[in-house]
Amino acid sequence: MTSAILLSGGMDSTTLLWWLKSQTSDPIHAISIDYRQRHHTELTAAAQLARDLAAHKVIALDLATIGGSPLTDPDRKVPAAAAHRQIDTVVPFRNMLFVTLAAAYCETQSITDLYLAPVRDDFSAYRDCRRPFYDSLEISLRLGATRDTAFKLHTPFIDKWKSEVVALGLELGVPYGQTHTCYEGQRPACGRCDACAERLAAFASNEVADPLPYA
Amino acid sequence: MTSAILLSGGMDSTTLLWWLKSQTSDPIHAISIDYRQRHHTELTAAAQLARDLAAHKVIALDLATIGGSPLTDPDRKVPAAAAHRQIDTVVPFRNMLFVTLAAAYCETQSITDLYLAPVRDDFSAYRDCRRPFYDSLEISLRLGATRDTAFKLHTPFIDKWKSEVVALGLELGVPYGQTHTCYEGQRPACGRCDACAERLAAFASNEVADPLPYA
Repeated sequence: MTSAILLSGGMDSTTLLWWLKSQTSDPIHAISIDYRQRHHTELTAAAQLARDLAAHKVIALDLATIGGSPLTDPDRKVPAAAAHRQIDTVVPFRNMLFVTLAAAYCETQSITDLYLAPVRDDFSAYRDCRRPFYDSLEISLRLGATRDTAFKLHTPFIDKWKSEVVALGLELGVPYGQTHTCYEGQRPACGRCDACAERLAAFASNEVADPLPYA
Repeated sequence: MTSAILLSGGMDSTTLLWWLKSQTSDPIHAISIDYRQRHHTELTAAAQLARDLAAHKVIALDLATIGGSPLTDPDRKVPAAAAHRQIDTVVPFRNMLFVTLAAAYCETQSITDLYLAPVRDDFSAYRDCRRPFYDSLEISLRLGATRDTAFKLHTPFIDKWKSEVVALGLELGVPYGQTHTCYEGQRPACGRCDACAERLAAFASNEVADPLPYA
């Protein structure tokens, strides 16, 4: 049965795509959201990563009209990890919008299984990365679908730490050098933002060098 | 306390704005979604209608990238009401996307009360116009918000027929000649699409002439 995955081009969702591919020989649709992110390199990475494994669909969402986050507003500075202001990078309901857009595309393709890659590290700062939220969202999507469906949101990594996801990805041969993580959208990556800091820590705990170049 | 309303510029949400204004002297934010609708006249109507009663915010959402509906795809024909194919005009999860975008804007403005105008007539064709759906969505929004909030979705017209909404609106002095309903996006309105047919029936049952010109 065809399934879909929300693929950002980052470490976690890319590992999920490789994992999903190891679990099924059925077709996979990889969905990426073009939300005019500061780090547009993420989308390019997603397209390249999906190429051999999945059909790739990009959906546009102009989050800039809502405002409120440095990830979509070039006038706002991305905070350094050391500042412990991860919450400042949040676009309200970003995940919910992404998942609902992906679900809308799934409905047009008669796909009822959508895979998402929240991980345990996201839990404390991001309330919309917790399973009670996804349980509720799954019910909302079932109730709001055009027709009665058993639509399902799969979050197989939700209890895994990022370091465990990397360990799994290294086993599966994920080309981490092609993934994109840095909030600043730079290549080489900045190494200072929260996303870079978490990524580097995940590789360090696996005693493996991150293949990505850093500034 | 400031509240927000999702204002399409159509008959139901405009009546809701007039009703809300009759209930409170606090500020109101009217939110309209620019989803590249075929009937862009609807957005112009919304801006004009909001002018004296509320602050007006337009949020962009490019539903064309999802596809599947004649309301966003100019190559698809809008079905006539007589064809009983109302379901063909559905963009999957359109209401859910609209409400979530509006909720995101509400979060940036610290607004916790959002008013929506589904009516009883929408019930049979549109599953996302039923209260169980909104109850679930309200929970999802509370669980997914950046911070713990008592966010509330108000649907005061959900048990009212469109004819009752018009009756209320006539009492409140809603300028129905400025509202927009026709799916074809025409002025004068086509009078043949499902939206026109429902509107005309609502006025007829009140034995009042619709002030809108028809082709």
